[in-house]
Amino acid sequence: MDIEKVNSMDFGEFVDVFGNVIERCPLIAAAVWSQRPFSDLEDLKKHFFAFIDALPQSGQEGILRCHPDLAGSELRRGTLTAESQREQSAAGLTSLGADERLRLAELNAQYRARFGFPFVLAARFSDRAAVSRELARRLLCPSAQELRTALGEVKKICSLRLADLLRADPAKL
Amino acid sequence: MDIEKVNSMDFGEFVDVFGNVIERCPLIAAAVWSQRPFSDLEDLKKHFFAFIDALPQSGQEGILRCHPDLAGSELRRGTLTAESQREQSAAGLTSLGADERLRLAELNAQYRARFGFPFVLAARFSDRAAVSRELARRLLCPSAQELRTALGEVKKICSLRLADLLRADPAKL
Repeated sequence: MDIEKVNSMDFGEFVDVFGNVIERCPLIAAAVWSQRPFSDLEDLKKHFFAFIDALPQSGQEGILRCHPDLAGSELRRGTLTAESQREQSAAGLTSLGADERLRLAELNAQYRARFGFPFVLAARFSDRAAVSRELARRLLCPSAQELRTALGEVKKICSLRLADLLRADPAKL
Repeated sequence: MDIEKVNSMDFGEFVDVFGNVIERCPLIAAAVWSQRPFSDLEDLKKHFFAFIDALPQSGQEGILRCHPDLAGSELRRGTLTAESQREQSAAGLTSLGADERLRLAELNAQYRARFGFPFVLAARFSDRAAVSRELARRLLCPSAQELRTALGEVKKICSLRLADLLRADPAKL
């Protein structure tokens, strides 16, 4: 898909295609459509990031709260979005042993209780050992710093998903 | 459900319950959770409205773009949210004749082309004749006015859905 194709989309198509580049936040893609035409993938991405950055803190926390736990109940129940399912699979989170799953569930619960949003990580850059190490590390960070870190992960996920859709090289993003 | 119950919810429960009071915008419920505790239904509603009002225009248009057409392709395909399905049913839109459906489809398409978002109406306050009359009327309104009108309808829908969830009397909202 090239940028001319993207710029030719009506809002219905655009939301169908880009509605989940920010997990379960089609509102953001639907808002970004107002900024068309886009000069290239980089420009499209910038508009997604600018929308996130302009939200009040409650809205930024809201984005995080639309994300599933890693290796959590939605993975078990099979209710993840297709994108999350692929990303959690790629990080090996679909084949955890009972002990590892329990350890992650405990850390996820502590994280949610401490920060009021779930632990978000661009899982495709990670593996099962790194996920739990990173979760344990970030659990100790100050709240304001952790909000910034988590939004950075949302943006990495967004970049990867946009690159998939435009079949671009993620290294160039 | 009383307000104490609402205030006791963690964000996962809250988004599960209130995630669709603004159609397909769970981000907004997830953001509103940051404002808890709520003193009553009116207070809860105010926080939803305040979030909408504080969005940039692109975000407000984004909310509208997450809504389905009335009597449109999603109704035919059976992919509406449960809430939309009930509301479109109540307005008689599930039992239109071919002529009426075609007439509405044409008006919907004109409206989308003119304003860049779909026609949104609190269908429960309406019936099939009124929907198409109102659509034809609003199609002629200036854009800025129409954006305000459409967001007013989003708020009416939100009020009704919140009242359903809290089993309150909609007349008191």
